[in-house]
Amino acid sequence: MSLISFPADRPLDLIALGRLCIDMNANEINRPMEETLTFTKYLGGSPANIAIAAARLGVRTGFVGKVADDQFGRFIRQYLTKEGINTDNVVTDRTGSVTGLAFTEIRSPQDCSILMYRDNAADLKLAPGEVKEDYIKQAKALLISGTALAKSPSREAVFMALEYAVKHGVRVIFDVDYRPYSWNSLEETGIYCRMVAEKSDVIIAGREEFDLMEAPFGELRHDDWYTAEMWFRCKARLVLVKHGSKGSIAFTKDGKTYRAGTFPANVVKTFGAGDSFAGAFIYGLFQGWSVDRCQQFGSASASIVVSSHSCSDAMPTVEQIEAVIAQHSGRNDL
Amino acid sequence: MSLISFPADRPLDLIALGRLCIDMNANEINRPMEETLTFTKYLGGSPANIAIAAARLGVRTGFVGKVADDQFGRFIRQYLTKEGINTDNVVTDRTGSVTGLAFTEIRSPQDCSILMYRDNAADLKLAPGEVKEDYIKQAKALLISGTALAKSPSREAVFMALEYAVKHGVRVIFDVDYRPYSWNSLEETGIYCRMVAEKSDVIIAGREEFDLMEAPFGELRHDDWYTAEMWFRCKARLVLVKHGSKGSIAFTKDGKTYRAGTFPANVVKTFGAGDSFAGAFIYGLFQGWSVDRCQQFGSASASIVVSSHSCSDAMPTVEQIEAVIAQHSGRNDL
Amino acid sequence: MSLISFPADRPLDLIALGRLCIDMNANEINRPMEETLTFTKYLGGSPANIAIAAARLGVRTGFVGKVADDQFGRFIRQYLTKEGINTDNVVTDRTGSVTGLAFTEIRSPQDCSILMYRDNAADLKLAPGEVKEDYIKQAKALLISGTALAKSPSREAVFMALEYAVKHGVRVIFDVDYRPYSWNSLEETGIYCRMVAEKSDVIIAGREEFDLMEAPFGELRHDDWYTAEMWFRCKARLVLVKHGSKGSIAFTKDGKTYRAGTFPANVVKTFGAGDSFAGAFIYGLFQGWSVDRCQQFGSASASIVVSSHSCSDAMPTVEQIEAVIAQHSGRNDL
Amino acid sequence: MSLISFPADRPLDLIALGRLCIDMNANEINRPMEETLTFTKYLGGSPANIAIAAARLGVRTGFVGKVADDQFGRFIRQYLTKEGINTDNVVTDRTGSVTGLAFTEIRSPQDCSILMYRDNAADLKLAPGEVKEDYIKQAKALLISGTALAKSPSREAVFMALEYAVKHGVRVIFDVDYRPYSWNSLEETGIYCRMVAEKSDVIIAGREEFDLMEAPFGELRHDDWYTAEMWFRCKARLVLVKHGSKGSIAFTKDGKTYRAGTFPANVVKTFGAGDSFAGAFIYGLFQGWSVDRCQQFGSASASIVVSSHSCSDAMPTVEQIEAVIAQHSGRNDL
Repeated sequence: MSLISFPADRPLDLIALGRLCIDMNANEINRPMEETLTFTKYLGGSPANIAIAAARLGVRTGFVGKVADDQFGRFIRQYLTKEGINTDNVVTDRTGSVTGLAFTEIRSPQDCSILMYRDNAADLKLAPGEVKEDYIKQAKALLISGTALAKSPSREAVFMALEYAVKHGVRVIFDVDYRPYSWNSLEETGIYCRMVAEKSDVIIAGREEFDLMEAPFGELRHDDWYTAEMWFRCKARLVLVKHGSKGSIAFTKDGKTYRAGTFPANVVKTFGAGDSFAGAFIYGLFQGWSVDRCQQFGSASASIVVSSHSCSDAMPTVEQIEAVIAQHSGRNDL
Repeated sequence: MSLISFPADRPLDLIALGRLCIDMNANEINRPMEETLTFTKYLGGSPANIAIAAARLGVRTGFVGKVADDQFGRFIRQYLTKEGINTDNVVTDRTGSVTGLAFTEIRSPQDCSILMYRDNAADLKLAPGEVKEDYIKQAKALLISGTALAKSPSREAVFMALEYAVKHGVRVIFDVDYRPYSWNSLEETGIYCRMVAEKSDVIIAGREEFDLMEAPFGELRHDDWYTAEMWFRCKARLVLVKHGSKGSIAFTKDGKTYRAGTFPANVVKTFGAGDSFAGAFIYGLFQGWSVDRCQQFGSASASIVVSSHSCSDAMPTVEQIEAVIAQHSGRNDL
Repeated sequence: MSLISFPADRPLDLIALGRLCIDMNANEINRPMEETLTFTKYLGGSPANIAIAAARLGVRTGFVGKVADDQFGRFIRQYLTKEGINTDNVVTDRTGSVTGLAFTEIRSPQDCSILMYRDNAADLKLAPGEVKEDYIKQAKALLISGTALAKSPSREAVFMALEYAVKHGVRVIFDVDYRPYSWNSLEETGIYCRMVAEKSDVIIAGREEFDLMEAPFGELRHDDWYTAEMWFRCKARLVLVKHGSKGSIAFTKDGKTYRAGTFPANVVKTFGAGDSFAGAFIYGLFQGWSVDRCQQFGSASASIVVSSHSCSDAMPTVEQIEAVIAQHSGRNDL
Repeated sequence: MSLISFPADRPLDLIALGRLCIDMNANEINRPMEETLTFTKYLGGSPANIAIAAARLGVRTGFVGKVADDQFGRFIRQYLTKEGINTDNVVTDRTGSVTGLAFTEIRSPQDCSILMYRDNAADLKLAPGEVKEDYIKQAKALLISGTALAKSPSREAVFMALEYAVKHGVRVIFDVDYRPYSWNSLEETGIYCRMVAEKSDVIIAGREEFDLMEAPFGELRHDDWYTAEMWFRCKARLVLVKHGSKGSIAFTKDGKTYRAGTFPANVVKTFGAGDSFAGAFIYGLFQGWSVDRCQQFGSASASIVVSSHSCSDAMPTVEQIEAVIAQHSGRNDL
């Protein structure tokens, strides 16, 4: 039996919940944004990227989210549909909200930043009553992106989806995806992320994000194993700690630890690395692969995306990922 | 061993958390408020009333809350101190908030209403960082009043206090105290009250309040025993369902049920009945009494308060409650 | 011909515009509010007080304002009606706003303060479309109270009423009534009060209030005559500068100056002095009296109100004012 | 003597006040924005466009405005400086506001629309205290753009600048530039635009914009001459009514009327037509030209801009405009 057992006979594998926005990626790179002249438009937002990553690998994917009633909102819906992602629970806001934007500034592969437009963003208007129990229960797993917790009513929509998932045996995968600009305080972040983490089967986060959930409740240990143990005492069976360019460490409830490095890449920008990793990793979980194979698959996917100009558009196929793995097959550290 | 075992050797018995406000009670009763000429000022707010009720019975009581930096805020702090309630974790707001007000209208004993002033109320400004772990851990029990969940940052302050209580073995008593004017939606209320109820040892609520917590997650059964079972599967050991003038039913995790009626009273108004009951019931729990004796003590206390003009000011002593019980000692239904 | 010529043949003499609220006056005086036990409810708000003062003297008075849809709002409407004030353009708010409150604290006749409740106040919700041109044009004069300028949409409602008044030859009397708690900045206050003052026939304000209107546009001279000249260059014909307990100085466009003192009084509190003065002064203007007689009448009225517990309820009749004047008839300084 | 006499010996000719934002212009045109892939970034906002139009023609130009503390804010300041526009009174906001955005959608030359981002926009945060009297008084004329009136505190900043201008004899040019998305109601728009128009020397607006200022105060006549007369009774000496593709009609206080058509153009989009017209028209006023010559110069400038992809970047030089005029010199209708 595999570590995470998914319910059988569900029409969808994965439902992602959270931010749907527009990335405006600088076309002229290696310069400050003041000198950027043109931008290319992509679908963005961490759960959107993960959903696309998964769908490209053949995962039957749906989405719970909210888009603005404007050209960008329609573009997002069309893009998801084009990728084969079910949008039955993607709601259109009618209150005059706008689509969140992320303008990227790529000064160098190591020096990237983002200029965000998050005021009155449609995705954070998702209301708890708009999350459909009948939709959630169709999936094997629910991916919750932590940014959806940043504001009401999206925050309550997350908790509603979480309850439905628990009720119907849908596995919960929580990707913390902490973005400081949307939250009021670190304490608020810690409190609400913790509430989701307590009921999640899989938790994916960076070291700093785990610290954020531990900080309100005692001194920090910065100790991955201590962290994993904390969540194993709740519901988690798999805790994945991301360490950026150093790779990741996965802990499983049966006491095992799996370390994975990163694949060599011709890095254009670091955006999208985590999302492509998560999408491919989740694909592996559905395949019933061993945790280290899931990690390797995720790392290979990330190496492809960081070498590209976009995030969502660059999500690779199984063949592309396998090609990268094959190319580096002699290495022991991947 | 009693049903609820409290930790020993703590300097405080009970810490109450939540609303501290001013009741402006009509002096000329049995008429609409338009014709009321004068009002008398009292300390109000459900957890404040419960704290006073408990303190008058000898319970060593503290409070976690926030008051405005004005004459009413200072009155509240002075009143708590005068009643022997510790105010070390009562914070003064400095942002220009005001003290919540409740003007009572008593048209008849059966027809009472309240005109609330809750905009920019100081009590809802309590921030999670203002709840002190060192304070919470001094108590045997924490009483959480559900109105404190209605808005941020007070909502997060509740969750912080709840975490500290769980961490230090402080028993959690949750009184739902639903007040529609402070909440955005019924779903929001259900979601957050449920989150507290899941970690509470004792839950006190009316039938409609329990329904509110069940509503988001399936069809309603309006079945007290079904409700109690739901919470026993979480952490609760005692679930008390209040049925207004019909009395209350207590369920305990060991499968027992206790019904209690109400004492006869010369009713002036119904305000304060629940708070006086809760304060006396909690006193009984600390004494290690049987549940039905706790209920009887609570009902007798309520009969005294509904016969009086005020809530907080009318909270009785042990002797006064015992006198009421003695007076009706031949009745079987109390 | 008198200084201010009012249009003839109008069904109303005066329409007042602005705040309608509740005064909660401490019954136990000469103590801090913390120790006040009971409060008596009165109609309050500067333009409400002036309207009542005028109506009691026989001025045919109407009101443009907004009240909450609650017991206090109904009380206000009933009270105005009882005083013979027309309420055809008093609108009831349906958005859940509340009635503004003013709790008085009377530590001593010289040490009075007010605790205000102005969040979400109904009077500031008056919208420009709710001011009726057909109503404004029925009056000889429009009294604008400056507090109505403090927030939108009430601010725009004032400007709408002002335009209608100018269009139909209704004389505009502007009482600045500056209350710091409602405004964002001194500059904002100065800008909007100045806009009303530019189109007013009569301006009534304290020295500090005139300074506020001059401050944004140059160094302050604190010179009453300089101030009056500034407004005579716009539209004003009468500028009345109030100097508190020292009395008032009236300037008229024909170059004359009138000084008036105050009448002796057994002062209970200073609240209401300005409003009773204004109501009686305006009554005098309608009678065609000389400016100094108007001032004397106003001062006598004020001496009665400061000797009473309430403001609105204490507004005197013509006979009461004349009795005070007769009593002090030998004095030269009044 | 020319119609508008400007004060002599001022270091600046024109100061523009109002919106500074970013235009994101679709590179792939003649399609819906959903299908647009890339956008080019330009400085935008009506007063910014007019300022650039004027500066390119040699007008010594300054700006009063506010920019965000981010890459787009810095780009705006750099762009203005590069165009020779003085930025001494361009303030940087430090409260976390963002730069307003306007994404253009060009489905056809006749079917253009804009997707606006105006939430938390830096330009509307300009406070009255940030407008410097010493700066305003350096100019011959102040151009006020009506969108700056849409929200506080920018609204109050306009009134402050207007007062300084009147005080120092700076001529006021008011371009109404009505944008529905920023205002609460049509009445609010009418009230505040009217207040500026009353003190303006030159008023530039479309027929519908003039109607907006007249609507709150009586039935609409849709009569240009009636409109002009209304404003001549205030302070205006020149009223320019724009009629879109039909050209414009100028009315002057001496009773004259000037009609002007438009120049033929290979229209790409209609955005920027009004701003380029206004910039060139104002240039003509500074030259002391006849009104019809100013109009002709403005129309020729507009014909150049509507044939281009951008607004600000396409503003022509004197030579370019004169070339267009020369090319069409035989026509009588221009």
